[in-house]
Amino acid sequence: MRPKLVLFGDSITEASFSDGGWGASLAHLFARKADVILRGYSGYNTRWAVKILDKAMAGIGGDAESPAAVTVFFGANDASLPDQRCGFQHVPLEEYRENLRSIHAYFKKKWPSAAVIFIAPPPIDEEARIKYPSGQAERTNEAAGKFAKACIAVAKELSTPVIDTWSKMQEIPNWRKSTLSDGLHFTTLGNKVLFYQVVNILIDLGLSEEKLPADLPYFYEVDPNDPSKTFG
Amino acid sequence: MRPKLVLFGDSITEASFSDGGWGASLAHLFARKADVILRGYSGYNTRWAVKILDKAMAGIGGDAESPAAVTVFFGANDASLPDQRCGFQHVPLEEYRENLRSIHAYFKKKWPSAAVIFIAPPPIDEEARIKYPSGQAERTNEAAGKFAKACIAVAKELSTPVIDTWSKMQEIPNWRKSTLSDGLHFTTLGNKVLFYQVVNILIDLGLSEEKLPADLPYFYEVDPNDPSKTFG
Repeated sequence: MRPKLVLFGDSITEASFSDGGWGASLAHLFARKADVILRGYSGYNTRWAVKILDKAMAGIGGDAESPAAVTVFFGANDASLPDQRCGFQHVPLEEYRENLRSIHAYFKKKWPSAAVIFIAPPPIDEEARIKYPSGQAERTNEAAGKFAKACIAVAKELSTPVIDTWSKMQEIPNWRKSTLSDGLHFTTLGNKVLFYQVVNILIDLGLSEEKLPADLPYFYEVDPNDPSKTFG
Repeated sequence: MRPKLVLFGDSITEASFSDGGWGASLAHLFARKADVILRGYSGYNTRWAVKILDKAMAGIGGDAESPAAVTVFFGANDASLPDQRCGFQHVPLEEYRENLRSIHAYFKKKWPSAAVIFIAPPPIDEEARIKYPSGQAERTNEAAGKFAKACIAVAKELSTPVIDTWSKMQEIPNWRKSTLSDGLHFTTLGNKVLFYQVVNILIDLGLSEEKLPADLPYFYEVDPNDPSKTFG
Protein backbone atom coordinates (compact mmCIF):
# COMPACT_ATOMS: atom_id res chain seq x y z
CA MET A 1 0.00 0.00 0.00
CA ARG A 2 1.22 3.46 -0.88
CA PRO A 3 1.91 6.01 1.85
CA LYS A 4 -0.48 8.93 2.00
CA LEU A 5 0.25 12.63 2.28
CA VAL A 6 -2.74 14.67 3.51
CA LEU A 7 -2.93 18.41 2.78
CA PHE A 8 -5.15 20.17 5.33
CA GLY A 9 -5.66 23.90 5.19
CA ASP A 10 -7.56 26.89 3.83
CA SER A 11 -7.99 28.21 0.28
CA ILE A 12 -4.27 28.05 -0.47
CA THR A 13 -4.54 24.33 0.13
CA GLU A 14 -7.92 24.00 -1.62
CA ALA A 15 -6.44 25.65 -4.73
CA SER A 16 -3.24 23.61 -4.62
CA PHE A 17 -4.31 21.39 -7.55
CA SER A 18 -4.89 24.29 -9.92
CA ASP A 19 -2.48 24.48 -12.90
CA GLY A 20 1.04 24.53 -11.45
CA GLY A 21 -0.26 24.20 -7.89
CA TRP A 22 1.92 22.94 -5.04
CA GLY A 23 -0.39 20.02 -4.23
CA ALA A 24 -0.53 18.83 -7.84
CA SER A 25 3.27 19.12 -8.01
CA LEU A 26 3.55 16.84 -4.97
CA ALA A 27 1.13 14.34 -6.55
CA HIS A 28 3.20 14.46 -9.75
CA LEU A 29 6.50 13.97 -7.94
CA PHE A 30 5.12 10.98 -6.03
CA ALA A 31 3.06 9.65 -8.96
CA ARG A 32 4.41 6.12 -8.57
CA LYS A 33 4.97 6.17 -4.82
CA ALA A 34 2.45 7.99 -2.64
CA ASP A 35 -1.12 9.34 -2.71
CA VAL A 36 -1.72 13.01 -2.04
CA ILE A 37 -5.10 13.68 -0.44
CA LEU A 38 -6.59 17.15 -0.60
CA ARG A 39 -8.51 18.61 2.31
CA GLY A 40 -8.51 22.35 1.69
CA TYR A 41 -11.34 24.56 2.93
CA SER A 42 -11.45 28.06 1.50
CA GLY A 43 -12.04 30.79 4.05
CA TYR A 44 -11.54 28.58 7.08
CA ASN A 45 -9.53 29.66 10.10
CA THR A 46 -8.14 27.46 12.87
CA ARG A 47 -11.25 27.99 15.03
CA TRP A 48 -13.40 26.36 12.37
CA ALA A 49 -10.70 23.83 11.43
CA VAL A 50 -10.69 22.44 14.98
CA LYS A 51 -14.44 21.82 14.75
CA ILE A 52 -14.42 19.96 11.44
CA LEU A 53 -11.44 17.64 11.87
CA ASP A 54 -13.47 14.46 12.23
CA LYS A 55 -15.61 15.14 9.19
CA ALA A 56 -12.72 16.34 7.07
CA MET A 57 -10.59 13.28 7.78
CA ALA A 58 -13.42 10.72 7.55
CA GLY A 59 -12.47 7.72 5.46
CA ILE A 60 -8.83 8.65 4.93
CA GLY A 61 -7.65 5.74 7.00
CA GLY A 62 -7.62 4.06 10.38
CA ASP A 63 -4.59 3.39 12.56
CA ALA A 64 -3.28 0.74 10.20
CA GLU A 65 -3.54 3.12 7.27
CA SER A 66 -2.00 6.12 8.96
CA PRO A 67 -0.84 8.74 6.45
CA ALA A 68 2.91 9.27 6.39
CA ALA A 69 2.48 13.01 6.76
CA VAL A 70 -0.13 15.75 7.15
CA THR A 71 0.42 19.40 6.29
CA VAL A 72 -1.43 21.94 8.44
CA PHE A 73 -1.62 25.28 6.66
CA PHE A 74 -3.80 27.86 8.43
CA GLY A 75 -3.35 31.42 9.56
CA ALA A 76 -4.03 33.57 6.49
CA ASN A 77 -7.68 33.89 7.57
CA ASP A 78 -6.99 33.99 11.30
CA ALA A 79 -4.80 37.03 10.57
CA SER A 80 -7.62 38.99 8.89
CA LEU A 81 -7.92 42.36 10.63
CA PRO A 82 -10.77 42.19 13.18
CA ASP A 83 -12.18 45.60 12.20
CA GLN A 84 -12.19 45.07 8.42
CA ARG A 85 -14.51 43.28 5.98
CA CYS A 86 -13.17 39.79 6.80
CA GLY A 87 -13.26 40.44 10.54
CA PHE A 88 -15.49 37.43 11.17
CA GLN A 89 -12.62 35.20 10.03
CA HIS A 90 -10.21 36.75 12.51
CA VAL A 91 -8.96 34.65 15.41
CA PRO A 92 -6.96 36.23 18.24
CA LEU A 93 -3.28 35.29 18.22
CA GLU A 94 -3.40 33.37 21.49
CA GLU A 95 -6.38 31.32 20.32
CA TYR A 96 -4.59 30.65 17.00
CA ARG A 97 -1.67 29.18 18.98
CA GLU A 98 -4.02 27.05 21.05
CA ASN A 99 -5.95 25.85 17.98
CA LEU A 100 -2.71 24.79 16.28
CA ARG A 101 -1.85 22.78 19.40
CA SER A 102 -5.29 21.13 19.26
CA ILE A 103 -4.95 20.25 15.57
CA HIS A 104 -1.51 18.80 16.19
CA ALA A 105 -2.81 16.77 19.15
CA TYR A 106 -5.74 15.50 17.07
CA PHE A 107 -3.47 14.13 14.35
CA LYS A 108 -0.95 12.70 16.80
CA LYS A 109 -3.77 10.82 18.55
CA LYS A 110 -5.49 9.67 15.34
CA TRP A 111 -2.32 8.75 13.46
CA PRO A 112 0.62 8.52 15.91
CA SER A 113 3.12 7.63 13.19
CA ALA A 114 2.19 10.53 10.90
CA ALA A 115 4.51 13.51 10.65
CA VAL A 116 2.58 16.73 11.20
CA ILE A 117 4.08 19.57 9.14
CA PHE A 118 3.01 23.12 9.95
CA ILE A 119 2.99 25.66 7.15
CA ALA A 120 3.02 29.26 8.35
CA PRO A 121 0.81 31.77 6.49
CA PRO A 122 2.24 33.66 3.49
CA PRO A 123 3.08 37.36 3.34
CA ILE A 124 0.48 39.88 2.16
CA ASP A 125 0.71 42.45 -0.62
CA GLU A 126 -1.56 45.03 1.00
CA GLU A 127 -1.92 47.16 -2.11
CA ALA A 128 -3.51 44.24 -3.92
CA ARG A 129 -5.95 43.66 -1.05
CA ILE A 130 -7.42 47.17 -0.98
CA LYS A 131 -11.08 47.23 -1.95
CA TYR A 132 -13.47 50.11 -2.41
CA PRO A 133 -15.50 51.85 -1.02
CA SER A 134 -13.55 51.24 2.21
CA GLY A 135 -10.22 51.88 0.48
CA GLN A 136 -8.67 49.58 3.07
CA ALA A 137 -6.92 46.21 3.00
CA GLU A 138 -8.53 43.49 5.14
CA ARG A 139 -5.14 41.91 5.79
CA THR A 140 -1.70 43.39 6.46
CA ASN A 141 1.73 41.90 6.02
CA GLU A 142 2.56 42.83 9.59
CA ALA A 143 -0.39 40.88 10.99
CA ALA A 144 0.40 37.90 8.75
CA GLY A 145 3.97 38.01 10.05
CA LYS A 146 2.78 37.85 13.67
CA PHE A 147 0.71 34.76 12.92
CA ALA A 148 3.58 33.21 10.98
CA LYS A 149 5.91 33.75 13.95
CA ALA A 150 3.30 32.27 16.30
CA CYS A 151 2.96 29.21 14.05
CA ILE A 152 6.73 28.73 14.03
CA ALA A 153 6.90 29.13 17.81
CA VAL A 154 4.18 26.52 18.39
CA ALA A 155 5.93 24.14 15.97
CA LYS A 156 9.16 24.56 17.95
CA GLU A 157 7.29 23.96 21.22
CA LEU A 158 5.77 20.75 19.76
CA SER A 159 9.00 19.70 18.00
CA THR A 160 7.13 19.45 14.72
CA PRO A 161 8.55 20.61 11.38
CA VAL A 162 7.44 23.97 10.03
CA ILE A 163 7.77 25.98 6.83
CA ASP A 164 8.25 29.72 7.24
CA THR A 165 6.25 30.67 4.15
CA TRP A 166 6.05 34.30 5.26
CA SER A 167 9.84 34.71 5.21
CA LYS A 168 10.63 32.37 2.30
CA MET A 169 8.25 34.15 -0.07
CA GLN A 170 9.72 37.53 0.81
CA GLU A 171 13.17 36.31 -0.27
CA ILE A 172 11.91 36.07 -3.87
CA PRO A 173 12.62 39.14 -6.05
CA ASN A 174 9.52 41.29 -6.52
CA TRP A 175 7.67 38.86 -4.21
CA ARG A 176 4.47 40.94 -4.00
CA LYS A 177 3.72 40.36 -7.67
CA SER A 178 5.93 37.39 -8.53
CA THR A 179 4.69 35.01 -5.83
CA LEU A 180 1.18 36.34 -5.10
CA SER A 181 -1.66 36.59 -7.63
CA ASP A 182 -4.01 38.77 -5.59
CA GLY A 183 -1.88 39.78 -2.66
CA LEU A 184 -2.68 36.56 -0.79
CA HIS A 185 -2.97 33.49 -3.05
CA PHE A 186 -0.06 32.04 -5.05
CA THR A 187 1.16 32.50 -8.60
CA THR A 188 2.80 29.51 -10.28
CA LEU A 189 6.13 30.75 -8.90
CA GLY A 190 4.67 31.06 -5.39
CA ASN A 191 3.33 27.53 -5.73
CA LYS A 192 6.74 26.23 -6.74
CA VAL A 193 8.42 27.99 -3.81
CA LEU A 194 6.10 26.24 -1.36
CA PHE A 195 6.34 22.93 -3.24
CA TYR A 196 10.12 22.82 -2.85
CA GLN A 197 9.86 23.79 0.81
CA VAL A 198 7.50 20.86 1.43
CA VAL A 199 9.78 18.54 -0.55
CA ASN A 200 12.75 19.60 1.59
CA ILE A 201 10.85 18.83 4.80
CA LEU A 202 9.76 15.45 3.41
CA ILE A 203 13.39 14.64 2.58
CA ASP A 204 14.34 15.50 6.18
CA LEU A 205 11.62 13.11 7.34
CA GLY A 206 12.93 10.27 5.17
CA LEU A 207 9.99 10.65 2.78
CA SER A 208 11.97 11.58 -0.31
CA GLU A 209 10.79 10.45 -3.72
CA GLU A 210 14.12 8.65 -4.09
CA LYS A 211 13.80 6.66 -0.87
CA LEU A 212 10.16 5.63 -1.10
CA PRO A 213 9.65 2.34 -2.95
CA ALA A 214 7.55 2.17 -6.13
CA ASP A 215 4.59 -0.21 -5.94
CA LEU A 216 5.39 -1.73 -9.34
CA PRO A 217 8.37 -2.02 -11.70
CA TYR A 218 9.47 0.93 -13.75
CA PHE A 219 9.44 0.61 -17.51
CA TYR A 220 13.24 0.82 -17.68
CA GLU A 221 13.45 -2.22 -15.41
CA VAL A 222 11.58 -4.39 -17.90
CA ASP A 223 13.81 -6.63 -20.05
CA PRO A 224 12.87 -5.79 -23.65
CA ASN A 225 13.85 -9.30 -24.69
CA ASP A 226 11.61 -10.94 -22.10
CA PRO A 227 9.01 -8.72 -20.42
CA SER A 228 7.39 -11.82 -18.94
CA LYS A 229 10.34 -12.09 -16.53
CA THR A 230 8.95 -8.94 -14.89
CA PHE A 231 5.24 -9.59 -15.19
CA GLY A 232 5.05 -13.38 -15.06
CA MET B 1 -16.85 9.90 2.99
CA ARG B 2 -15.90 11.42 -0.31
CA PRO B 3 -16.34 9.44 -3.53
CA LYS B 4 -13.14 8.35 -5.23
CA LEU B 5 -12.15 8.60 -8.86
CA VAL B 6 -9.31 6.25 -9.82
CA LEU B 7 -7.15 6.99 -12.89
CA PHE B 8 -5.58 3.78 -14.23
CA GLY B 9 -3.41 3.87 -17.31
CA ASP B 10 0.01 4.33 -18.89
CA SER B 11 2.35 7.35 -19.01
CA ILE B 12 -0.42 9.70 -20.13
CA THR B 13 -2.14 8.88 -16.86
CA GLU B 14 1.11 8.87 -14.84
CA ALA B 15 1.88 12.39 -16.11
CA SER B 16 -1.66 13.66 -15.55
CA PHE B 17 -0.66 15.65 -12.44
CA SER B 18 2.04 17.63 -14.19
CA ASP B 19 1.35 21.37 -14.59
CA GLY B 20 -1.99 21.71 -16.35
CA GLY B 21 -2.50 17.94 -16.43
CA TRP B 22 -5.93 16.37 -16.86
CA GLY B 23 -5.73 14.44 -13.57
CA ALA B 24 -4.76 17.51 -11.57
CA SER B 25 -7.60 19.42 -13.26
CA LEU B 26 -10.04 16.76 -12.09
CA ALA B 27 -8.65 16.92 -8.54
CA HIS B 28 -8.99 20.71 -8.66
CA LEU B 29 -12.57 20.60 -9.95
CA PHE B 30 -13.57 18.12 -7.24
CA ALA B 31 -11.40 19.73 -4.53
CA ARG B 32 -14.26 19.84 -2.01
CA LYS B 33 -16.13 16.76 -3.20
CA ALA B 34 -14.12 13.77 -4.39
CA ASP B 35 -10.63 12.25 -4.18
CA VAL B 36 -8.72 11.55 -7.37
CA ILE B 37 -6.34 8.62 -7.05
CA LEU B 38 -3.49 8.25 -9.51
CA ARG B 39 -2.42 4.85 -10.80
CA GLY B 40 -0.47 5.58 -13.96
CA TYR B 41 2.33 3.29 -15.14
CA SER B 42 4.57 4.68 -17.84
CA GLY B 43 5.29 2.26 -20.67
CA TYR B 44 2.70 -0.30 -19.65
CA ASN B 45 0.42 -2.02 -22.12
CA THR B 46 -2.79 -3.94 -21.39
CA ARG B 47 -0.91 -7.24 -21.18
CA TRP B 48 1.11 -5.96 -18.24
CA ALA B 49 -1.83 -4.01 -16.82
CA VAL B 50 -3.86 -7.20 -16.45
CA LYS B 51 -1.04 -8.74 -14.40
CA ILE B 52 -0.63 -5.90 -11.95
CA LEU B 53 -4.25 -5.01 -11.15
CA ASP B 54 -4.22 -6.41 -7.62
CA LYS B 55 -0.99 -4.66 -6.65
CA ALA B 56 -1.94 -1.40 -8.32
CA MET B 57 -5.32 -1.20 -6.60
CA ALA B 58 -4.15 -2.42 -3.17
CA GLY B 59 -5.47 -0.27 -0.36
CA ILE B 60 -7.74 1.92 -2.46
CA GLY B 61 -10.82 0.49 -0.84
CA GLY B 62 -12.93 -2.57 -0.19
CA ASP B 63 -16.52 -3.15 -1.30
CA ALA B 64 -17.86 -0.57 1.12
CA GLU B 65 -15.41 2.01 -0.18
CA SER B 66 -15.93 1.35 -3.86
CA PRO B 67 -14.68 4.23 -6.02
CA ALA B 68 -17.41 6.03 -7.92
CA ALA B 69 -15.50 5.67 -11.17
CA VAL B 70 -12.31 4.26 -12.69
CA THR B 71 -10.74 5.46 -15.93
CA VAL B 72 -8.93 2.81 -18.00
CA PHE B 73 -6.57 4.47 -20.44
CA PHE B 74 -4.34 2.02 -22.34
CA GLY B 75 -3.53 1.39 -25.95
CA ALA B 76 -0.80 3.89 -26.85
CA ASN B 77 1.85 1.29 -25.98
CA ASP B 78 -0.10 -1.72 -27.27
CA ALA B 79 -0.19 0.09 -30.63
CA SER B 80 3.61 0.37 -30.86
CA LEU B 81 4.71 -1.14 -34.16
CA PRO B 82 5.93 -4.71 -33.54
CA ASP B 83 9.00 -4.34 -35.77
CA GLN B 84 10.25 -1.01 -34.36
CA ARG B 85 12.23 0.01 -31.29
CA CYS B 86 9.23 -0.27 -28.92
CA GLY B 87 8.14 -3.59 -30.37
CA PHE B 88 8.33 -5.32 -27.00
CA GLN B 89 5.45 -3.10 -25.83
CA HIS B 90 3.26 -4.13 -28.75
CA VAL B 91 0.18 -6.22 -28.09
CA PRO B 92 -1.82 -7.74 -30.97
CA LEU B 93 -5.18 -6.08 -31.55
CA GLU B 94 -7.25 -9.12 -30.61
CA GLU B 95 -5.33 -9.55 -27.35
CA TYR B 96 -5.78 -5.81 -26.64
CA ARG B 97 -9.56 -6.30 -26.93
CA GLU B 98 -9.44 -9.32 -24.65
CA ASN B 99 -7.27 -7.55 -22.07
CA LEU B 100 -9.68 -4.60 -21.97
CA ARG B 101 -12.51 -7.06 -21.28
CA SER B 102 -10.45 -8.60 -18.45
CA ILE B 103 -9.68 -5.21 -16.89
CA HIS B 104 -13.34 -4.25 -17.09
CA ALA B 105 -14.38 -7.56 -15.51
CA TYR B 106 -11.81 -7.12 -12.73
CA PHE B 107 -13.18 -3.72 -11.73
CA LYS B 108 -16.81 -4.81 -12.04
CA LYS B 109 -16.10 -7.74 -9.70
CA LYS B 110 -14.00 -5.74 -7.23
CA TRP B 111 -16.22 -2.65 -7.18
CA PRO B 112 -19.63 -3.50 -8.69
CA SER B 113 -20.98 0.02 -8.20
CA ALA B 114 -18.02 1.76 -9.87
CA ALA B 115 -18.43 3.17 -13.36
CA VAL B 116 -15.61 1.96 -15.61
CA ILE B 117 -14.71 4.60 -18.20
CA PHE B 118 -12.54 3.56 -21.14
CA ILE B 119 -10.27 6.17 -22.70
CA ALA B 120 -9.12 5.28 -26.20
CA PRO B 121 -5.48 6.04 -27.13
CA PRO B 122 -4.60 9.44 -28.62
CA PRO B 123 -3.53 10.14 -32.19
CA ILE B 124 0.16 10.12 -33.13
CA ASP B 125 2.23 12.80 -34.81
CA GLU B 126 4.58 10.45 -36.63
CA GLU B 127 7.06 13.15 -37.62
CA ALA B 128 7.71 13.89 -33.95
CA ARG B 129 8.28 10.20 -33.21
CA ILE B 130 11.04 9.62 -35.78
CA LYS B 131 14.37 8.81 -34.18
CA TYR B 132 17.77 8.27 -35.68
CA PRO B 133 19.65 6.19 -36.79
CA SER B 134 16.55 4.20 -37.80
CA GLY B 135 14.83 7.27 -39.24
CA GLN B 136 11.57 5.56 -38.42
CA ALA B 137 8.65 6.27 -36.10
CA GLU B 138 7.87 3.51 -33.61
CA ARG B 139 4.16 4.41 -33.65
CA THR B 140 1.83 5.46 -36.46
CA ASN B 141 -1.42 7.36 -36.35
CA GLU B 142 -3.06 4.61 -38.38
CA ALA B 143 -2.13 1.92 -35.85
CA ALA B 144 -3.26 4.13 -32.96
CA GLY B 145 -6.56 4.62 -34.77
CA LYS B 146 -7.10 0.86 -35.05
CA PHE B 147 -6.55 0.42 -31.32
CA ALA B 148 -8.81 3.39 -30.58
CA LYS B 149 -11.58 1.84 -32.68
CA ALA B 150 -11.08 -1.50 -30.93
CA CYS B 151 -11.33 0.21 -27.54
CA ILE B 152 -14.57 1.91 -28.57
CA ALA B 153 -15.99 -1.36 -29.92
CA VAL B 154 -15.22 -3.23 -26.69
CA ALA B 155 -16.77 -0.39 -24.66
CA LYS B 156 -19.93 -0.66 -26.78
CA GLU B 157 -19.99 -4.42 -26.32
CA LEU B 158 -19.67 -4.00 -22.54
CA SER B 159 -22.04 -1.00 -22.39
CA THR B 160 -19.36 1.04 -20.65
CA PRO B 161 -18.68 4.73 -21.42
CA VAL B 162 -15.73 5.57 -23.62
CA ILE B 163 -13.83 8.66 -24.75
CA ASP B 164 -12.67 8.69 -28.36
CA THR B 165 -9.43 10.55 -27.67
CA TRP B 166 -8.04 9.67 -31.09
CA SER B 167 -10.87 11.47 -32.92
CA LYS B 168 -11.45 14.28 -30.43
CA MET B 169 -7.82 15.38 -30.50
CA GLN B 170 -7.78 15.44 -34.29
CA GLU B 171 -10.68 17.92 -34.26
CA ILE B 172 -8.40 20.52 -32.67
CA PRO B 173 -6.70 22.92 -35.14
CA ASN B 174 -3.06 22.03 -35.73
CA TRP B 175 -3.58 19.02 -33.43
CA ARG B 176 -0.15 17.46 -34.11
CA LYS B 177 1.60 20.34 -32.39
CA SER B 178 -1.19 21.98 -30.39
CA THR B 179 -2.33 18.89 -28.44
CA LEU B 180 0.81 16.72 -28.45
CA SER B 181 4.17 17.66 -26.95
CA ASP B 182 6.26 14.87 -28.49
CA GLY B 183 3.89 13.29 -30.94
CA LEU B 184 2.32 11.11 -28.23
CA HIS B 185 2.02 12.86 -24.83
CA PHE B 186 -0.18 15.89 -24.18
CA THR B 187 0.43 19.61 -24.17
CA THR B 188 -1.59 21.72 -21.74
CA LEU B 189 -4.24 22.07 -24.45
CA GLY B 190 -4.29 18.32 -25.05
CA ASN B 191 -4.69 17.82 -21.30
CA LYS B 192 -7.63 20.23 -21.22
CA VAL B 193 -9.31 18.48 -24.16
CA LEU B 194 -9.20 15.16 -22.32
CA PHE B 195 -10.17 16.78 -19.00
CA TYR B 196 -13.39 18.17 -20.47
CA GLN B 197 -14.16 14.83 -22.13
CA VAL B 198 -13.85 13.08 -18.77
CA VAL B 199 -15.97 15.75 -17.09
CA ASN B 200 -18.70 15.27 -19.71
CA ILE B 201 -18.79 11.53 -19.10
CA LEU B 202 -18.91 12.09 -15.33
CA ILE B 203 -21.86 14.45 -15.81
CA ASP B 204 -23.64 11.74 -17.83
CA LEU B 205 -22.99 9.35 -14.94
CA GLY B 206 -24.49 11.74 -12.38
CA LEU B 207 -21.04 12.54 -11.01
CA SER B 208 -21.00 16.23 -11.84
CA GLU B 209 -19.26 18.66 -9.55
CA GLU B 210 -22.60 20.43 -9.14
CA LYS B 211 -24.51 17.35 -8.04
CA LEU B 212 -21.98 15.83 -5.65
CA PRO B 213 -22.36 17.07 -2.08
CA ALA B 214 -19.52 18.91 -0.33
CA ASP B 215 -18.31 17.28 2.88
CA LEU B 216 -18.34 20.59 4.77
CA PRO B 217 -19.94 24.03 4.44
CA TYR B 218 -18.68 26.50 1.90
CA PHE B 219 -17.34 29.80 3.13
CA TYR B 220 -20.22 31.70 1.50
CA GLU B 221 -22.66 29.62 3.55
CA VAL B 222 -21.21 30.90 6.83
CA ASP B 223 -23.19 33.72 8.47
CA PRO B 224 -20.63 36.53 8.97
CA ASN B 225 -22.63 37.73 11.96
CA ASP B 226 -22.61 34.35 13.65
CA PRO B 227 -20.15 31.76 12.27
CA SER B 228 -20.84 29.57 15.30
CA LYS B 229 -24.26 28.76 13.79
CA THR B 230 -22.34 26.80 11.16
CA PHE B 231 -19.56 25.37 13.26
CA GLY B 232 -21.20 24.99 16.69
